[in-house]
Amino acid sequence: MNKFGLLECTLRDGGYITGWKFKDDMIKDTISALTESGFDFVEVGYLNNKSDANNTTQFRKISDIADFLPSKRDKTTFLAMADVLQFLPEDLTPYDGRSIDGIRVVFYKHQIDEALRLGKAVSENGYKLFMQPMVTIDYNIDEYVALAEKIAELNPFAVSIVDSFGYMLKSDFRRYFRVLDNILPENVVIGFHSHNNMNLALINAQDILDYQSSRNIIIDSSLYGMGRGAGNLQTELIADYYNKTLGEKYNVNIVLDLISKYILPISQSKSWGYSPYFFITALYHCHPNYASYLLQEHNVSVSEFRKYIESVPKEMYTKCRKPYVIELYEKFKSGEQIE
Amino acid sequence: MNKFGLLECTLRDGGYITGWKFKDDMIKDTISALTESGFDFVEVGYLNNKSDANNTTQFRKISDIADFLPSKRDKTTFLAMADVLQFLPEDLTPYDGRSIDGIRVVFYKHQIDEALRLGKAVSENGYKLFMQPMVTIDYNIDEYVALAEKIAELNPFAVSIVDSFGYMLKSDFRRYFRVLDNILPENVVIGFHSHNNMNLALINAQDILDYQSSRNIIIDSSLYGMGRGAGNLQTELIADYYNKTLGEKYNVNIVLDLISKYILPISQSKSWGYSPYFFITALYHCHPNYASYLLQEHNVSVSEFRKYIESVPKEMYTKCRKPYVIELYEKFKSGEQIE
Repeated sequence: MNKFGLLECTLRDGGYITGWKFKDDMIKDTISALTESGFDFVEVGYLNNKSDANNTTQFRKISDIADFLPSKRDKTTFLAMADVLQFLPEDLTPYDGRSIDGIRVVFYKHQIDEALRLGKAVSENGYKLFMQPMVTIDYNIDEYVALAEKIAELNPFAVSIVDSFGYMLKSDFRRYFRVLDNILPENVVIGFHSHNNMNLALINAQDILDYQSSRNIIIDSSLYGMGRGAGNLQTELIADYYNKTLGEKYNVNIVLDLISKYILPISQSKSWGYSPYFFITALYHCHPNYASYLLQEHNVSVSEFRKYIESVPKEMYTKCRKPYVIELYEKFKSGEQIE
Repeated sequence: MNKFGLLECTLRDGGYITGWKFKDDMIKDTISALTESGFDFVEVGYLNNKSDANNTTQFRKISDIADFLPSKRDKTTFLAMADVLQFLPEDLTPYDGRSIDGIRVVFYKHQIDEALRLGKAVSENGYKLFMQPMVTIDYNIDEYVALAEKIAELNPFAVSIVDSFGYMLKSDFRRYFRVLDNILPENVVIGFHSHNNMNLALINAQDILDYQSSRNIIIDSSLYGMGRGAGNLQTELIADYYNKTLGEKYNVNIVLDLISKYILPISQSKSWGYSPYFFITALYHCHPNYASYLLQEHNVSVSEFRKYIESVPKEMYTKCRKPYVIELYEKFKSGEQIE
């Protein structure tokens, strides 16, 4: 990669839309086309030691991914994500050059210890290690400094700033970037992963491309923004903006052909993208699934939804399980009727 | 207004989605709520000397608008748009303080003479004059300087930079801003009107709020981005961003209530917002109606649409009538079959 690289994560983060069900042929074709388009990194799915099916981007073993990768790798680095609850240090097999090159370890703030253990094992097994602390803005600066110092000891390839809830402003990203830039060894790459709940993903990505730093940087995106809630940074937008401002590098026509063949057909029956409901979850710093789960079960107007979100206790903003979301709504409704 | 003011244009530019059919009660309620929210300017619709119906925001006479305006005007300025083909100098009646305060004269590059005539009459009749040259990027800098010099003679209240096709980058807006800032008297406001075909509207608006200039500035937006193609800058996003970065000024809860009551119900049957088709029209600098018109009649994949747009002759990029769009597609298809 040059100073800036793009990481395509449709098969992983877009997978939330289909429950990671994608046809094997589609998976192969997508990886191959993204490689041909020139993406620096392609994330092909999750590692999940419980997975046992075909036609999914949840892979049980690292070696299961090898057959999906193109024989000619060009300059692309292939990655899979490992959630600390779904893939353990003992599930790792040593790097042999035939499957993925790196593993992105993803974790919440209460899972730092498990993440550091898994991260250490990833490095020791010869893979490029990417550390992905979700809801980065949930860490205050002291906590983030402490986290960065611990991660630095693991010899990571990259550490990402993750705007899971889609409300981080340019100034927020810059603040967390400065911490990482000060603490991490200069060869460690800094990554950015963002969501569009407030339509901020491209804004932040454009700003990142203006950073005055010698640090190498990676930006995540997905085709047509396919992803949870309002979705991710759109690959076609950041690739086109990169080409226009930093020089032609990515083949946008291939990107559009993938959207045409695979992604737009999915969007006919499953929806993602900007909506007032996700704007509201971001406005209140809540998990977007408060909207997704509630709207699956109830017809709730935007005005009512805003009042409902106001009723969420602060300590539950990042914790979002469906039964809780529904139960809280029923409490909220009965409270309204009593008034 | 402070240095920065917001102009809400849902009833005018969102009107493209409904053919400007809005219930009279909705029109009144919306204007009143937007005023209460604190918007500096509210555009209530089009002036159109052919209009003869109720329940529309196409108004035949200036005086027809008076009944829709709140008795308490607070600090809000009320506007209507006049297209040079739909409202003529002789249709104007003198300002009497009971109806709108200003008129936005909108025109294409080949209509400059008519626009200057109408603009002069607007000023002479006592209204604040806003000049809106559509597809601003269609003017090269020499042409734009000449236009700005002619407009400056009319004593306008404001002149807008208009990104009709949604592909102007920050650097483009800054270039046109510098021309206006150099030429227009210092009391003239500069406005910005943008569309989301490449999801750039909020990016450009955020950048504009960073301009180092003593000039007063207006930014246009609509509720939930309601508008043609991928729609406009979303009012809720720019109002919230303004509040967060420049101090609380706009009531976002009222904005969300309007979206809840009037706009989201419309979006159930009519669609707007970011899509790969509008991304492609913007990529090729074409009018978004190439997508809207064609998709009304034909099921066209994203890949095929991109090839179709490649076949549009350059001189037709800004000219877009439905029969032409369809005829060109049929030619494109038969050409494909011959190959």
